[in-house]
This record gives sequence, C-alpha cells and structure tokens, in this order.
Amino acid sequence: MTITIKDVADAAGVSTATVSRALRGLPNVDAGTRERIERIAADLDYVISPSASRLASGRTGSIAVITPHVARWYFATVLSGVESVLQSAGIDLLLMSVSSSDGQHRLPPAPRLRRRVDGALVIALSPEDPQLHDVLALGLPTSLIGLTMPGVPSVTIDDVLAGRMAAQHLINLGHERIGVITGASVGAPFTAPNDRYLGFEAAMSDAGLEIDPRLAHHGYFTMTGGEQAMTALLTQRHPPTAVFAMSDEMAFGALRAMRSHGLQPGEDISIVGIDGHDMSELLDLSTVAQPVVDLGRSAAEALLLQLKDPGTGTPHEEIRMPTRLIVRGSTRPRSA
Amino acid sequence: MTITIKDVADAAGVSTATVSRALRGLPNVDAGTRERIERIAADLDYVISPSASRLASGRTGSIAVITPHVARWYFATVLSGVESVLQSAGIDLLLMSVSSSDGQHRLPPAPRLRRRVDGALVIALSPEDPQLHDVLALGLPTSLIGLTMPGVPSVTIDDVLAGRMAAQHLINLGHERIGVITGASVGAPFTAPNDRYLGFEAAMSDAGLEIDPRLAHHGYFTMTGGEQAMTALLTQRHPPTAVFAMSDEMAFGALRAMRSHGLQPGEDISIVGIDGHDMSELLDLSTVAQPVVDLGRSAAEALLLQLKDPGTGTPHEEIRMPTRLIVRGSTRPRSA
Repeated sequence: MTITIKDVADAAGVSTATVSRALRGLPNVDAGTRERIERIAADLDYVISPSASRLASGRTGSIAVITPHVARWYFATVLSGVESVLQSAGIDLLLMSVSSSDGQHRLPPAPRLRRRVDGALVIALSPEDPQLHDVLALGLPTSLIGLTMPGVPSVTIDDVLAGRMAAQHLINLGHERIGVITGASVGAPFTAPNDRYLGFEAAMSDAGLEIDPRLAHHGYFTMTGGEQAMTALLTQRHPPTAVFAMSDEMAFGALRAMRSHGLQPGEDISIVGIDGHDMSELLDLSTVAQPVVDLGRSAAEALLLQLKDPGTGTPHEEIRMPTRLIVRGSTRPRSA
Repeated sequence: MTITIKDVADAAGVSTATVSRALRGLPNVDAGTRERIERIAADLDYVISPSASRLASGRTGSIAVITPHVARWYFATVLSGVESVLQSAGIDLLLMSVSSSDGQHRLPPAPRLRRRVDGALVIALSPEDPQLHDVLALGLPTSLIGLTMPGVPSVTIDDVLAGRMAAQHLINLGHERIGVITGASVGAPFTAPNDRYLGFEAAMSDAGLEIDPRLAHHGYFTMTGGEQAMTALLTQRHPPTAVFAMSDEMAFGALRAMRSHGLQPGEDISIVGIDGHDMSELLDLSTVAQPVVDLGRSAAEALLLQLKDPGTGTPHEEIRMPTRLIVRGSTRPRSA
C-alpha cells in the first residue's frame, strides 16, 4: 500500500495543505505542528514528492550543463568543477551534450530545458551556434564557460593574452620562423581560437616578425589533428624552428609527429601548447596553463549567486581567470 | 502574462483535463481534438509542465549516473557512452559524484534519488561502499558499470582475464622477474584490481614463476601513484625486467619514473597497462584495451530496456565486454 499525503493528514489531524506546507518547509505552520507532522511522515515512511514540491515553489532545483563533448579533457575537467559546486549546494546537475564526435544525432537542448531547470551553464560552444541562441532565448539565468557574448555572464581566460604569452616565449628564445597549429574556427569572431591567434599575431608583429601563411595549419583541437598539422609543417621546404599549438592535445599530436620524423622536441624544434593538461608534465611540454577546474567552479558559483538573489551582483559579469606559462623541455633557445 | 492551461482550454473550447491529456499524449482524446489543442498550445506558446506531466505518469524521465570521479579518463569516457544513449532516448541524465580527490564533502546519493529518477547507473564503486548499498536499497532499476554484485545487472570486462593477458604477454616475451603496480583495493573481494591481480597470479603460477612480494606496489590508479610505485621498483636491489601496471594512467607514471632514471621503456624494462587510454598510442604503451565507451552505452541500453518493459529480459544479466591486447614499443623480449 502506498502512503499518501491524506494518510499523513488524517494521522496528524490536519489538512493535506498543512502537511504539504510543513514538509516543504513553507511558513505559516507552527513549530509544534510541523514537528508532529514530520514525525508522523517519518513513521509512515512518507516523503513529499520532489516534483510536487518543486511545482509549488516554482523552482526545479536543477541546473543544466550544456557541452559539445563529455569525455574530452577540457570539458570533463570543467564539468568536474561545476559538479562539485552544484553538489555542495544540493542542486541537481542535468548533463546535455549538443553535438558529438561520434556523429550521433543530438536533441536540441532548448526545448528540454523549459520548466526543467533553474539555469544553464554552457561550455565552449561557438557564439554563432543557433542552439546557443535558442538556449539564451529561454530567458533562464545562463552563464558561459570558455566563450563570451555581449550581455551574457561568462567565465573565461584571456585567450588573446594566452596566445601572446605562448608566442612571446618562443620569440624570447630567439625563434623567428614560428609555425602555428590552430583550432578549426579561426575567422569566426569572439572564439578562443580566434583570440589566441590574435595574440600570436600581435606578439609576432611587435617583434617585427612575419607570419608565413604556409606555417599555419588547422589541428581541430584533437591529437590526430595536431599530428597531421605538424606533419604538414615538417614536410615543408623550410620548416619552422618553433611551433605554437593552440591546445595541449594538438601539441601532443605534434610531439608524436616529431618522433615519427626522428626529431627531438626542444632539441630540433621547440613546441608550446595552451591548457596545462594533466599529461603535459609527463610529456615535458611547455604550456600556458589555464585553471580549468576553477573555470567550472567559478561559473557555477556565480550562477548560484544569481539564482539565490537575482537583485544583487552584476548579472552580466565577465570573469577572467589567470593563466601562467610553464616552461619545460619542449621549448629551448634556437640553436645558432 | 503567463499562459495557463485554462487559457488553452478556453481557446479550444474543452476542459483543462482534456488539454492535459492531449498534450501529455495520453489516450481517450480523439485525433482531431488533439491536433486542434496542440495547434492552439503552439500558438499561445504554452508548454505543459514536465513536472506536472511526470507526476501524472509516475515517471521522472531521468536516470542518475553515480560516479566517484567526473574528470578522470575512465569515468568521463564511460559517462560519454551513457550520455549518448540517454540523450537519444530523450531521457535526462542526472550526474552525481559520491567522493572526490579534492576531499570535498559529498552528499550521500540515495536520498537525492527518491522520486527524482527512474533508475540509476553506478560506475566503479567498491561493492562494499555503504553508499552503494543505500542506493540499491531504494529498489530502483539499477545497473553497475565496472563492478559486479550478485543479483544486480552489470556491465564489466573480465578483469581476471585482462590481468592474465597482460601477465602472459610479458611471460611470452621471456620475462620471469615481473613487477606489478596495483590499485589500492587489493584484498577487497570482487573488485577490478583484485580480479586483475588474480589473473596475474594465475598466469605466473601456470608458468611456474614466483611472485616476489617486494615487486608489488600500490599505484592507487593515478599517474603520480604509478610513478612512485615504479620508483620503488627501480630502486630495489634486484629490479624487475618487466612490469604490469593495472591501469594505463599508472603505467604513464611508471614511464615517467623510467625516464627520470635514464631508462628506455621496452629496451631496459618492459611495461604493459590495462585500458587502451587515448594517450597510450602516443606514449607507445602496450596495453590490454577495454571498450570503455561501450561499457557505458551497453549499461544505459540495458537499463532503458528494463524500464520500458520490466517484464521481459533478464533483469540480473551480467554483460562481459571483450578486451584485446595491443602490443607496442613498451614491451620487448627480455634481453639475454
């Protein structure tokens, strides 16, 4: 037999509305009555339905995380930061991917969010992705991680600066003929790869160095892509003496291409990445490290703050997290 | 102004109950009326509350994934497989971690699941974890990934066989003094590290080889742990000529320890892992590969089948996925 709210009300000698108010922690129930109802509910093993409770409060107690990838290092690491904050706050995390490398069909996220979540966190979609615009059109509190859009709160690193740091490090080591392994979306405005390229360009230009267009190859932010781009660079008539890869995973692929060609990282060609990936230390890769867990944590904390008290705070805040250059064996002074 | 169900009912000239039935896809509404109601609801931009709809159907439309880690490769990769299946089925994925390397307090999962999800998938907890027993006590359809328990459906690899394959590969190459880098939980029954050790033990015993207890070290399934364990092995008076690491991440750490000691993997000491980690190819690591995405996919598919039709199928099915040995440069015949 299933215990209903009416059973609890009958046992307590109050109305079902009072039981509902008491168990949902709403006011206008006196302390003694509330205690008695809670004891009876516990005795009868009755739990108020969370859905019913949420309907009444107008809150779902859930936040959606919308991400193009689940397993890739950056996305999984951001997710772990978000998860730890939401869990501490007792908020449910609804995970939704919007596209995937396995080519599988994905449901558009926006219709699945309506009346289902109190807010959304979006990881590193393109600002031109129509799915992102549909999500924003819902009018839910939303925060972006790894991308910025005018008027929407976001947590990112300064990608222009990160690109500049990586390039300047190579320039400081005496390199002049510098190749670049880019993400796929150079050209689309406001995205991380574009900003990183702008930083690279600025550092080169400030140093009076030219960018040889034959030394720029797409690596699509994957290890395989990085390997192919590096292979293209290595098979040029005049290969670069140093390479800036826009992510560590692409740099890992580039290291592999170098090994296939019998070349030593640092010794023969210098290479620097961006990320501070878990494996970068093992692979002795110089990198501009970003605080990826903290990107997720900060975005989740800012969103919770906004939900708790929509009146306070700066709702359109853009948070920039710091990056730092870690120099390892993969970058060395240019040999004379 | 918020559009209510009454507005739709008034516009359609039917009762709110009929609108509710029509929009929730329940029977007893004729096709013409249903179509008219759907059109009017669309015109008015009215969406029936999913919570209300779920209350009525007794289904939440959600599945919980309970995992001890979010960002670690194995867990993130299982999660990506689960997510793709649930998303295709239109089921929401609630992500809950139960402990974490950051030492943060985590809420026990069981109370958060009641009336909130239709089922649960549990990744690689210890079968003795009280949190797992609390989840199972809820009586929800539950499936285990990477662990087995009597009477509970599960999807795993044959960990005894995986351990045996790794050890036998080293034995076949002529190695006799073989070290082992274990997980932390050897001794606890039924867990992956224990099973992998049993396989290692059986292969050694079948080959008439002794296991030197000084050549077994805990690596705690982390890269740092693997590095420390390998360092302990390398600083023995009689170091092993080959090492079996129970996970690729521990093997990566072991490779690093070898490099610090000026030793060449394969050349000086052979090393084999288990996983088929994304990075194992780059690091030229021999490994017993497991189909990690498919573990997640299969478990999610089995759980959905059980939810759809609780009558059919074998609810206590234990699915074993195949593993395969990938031989790379880190394992070579023992030098004479």
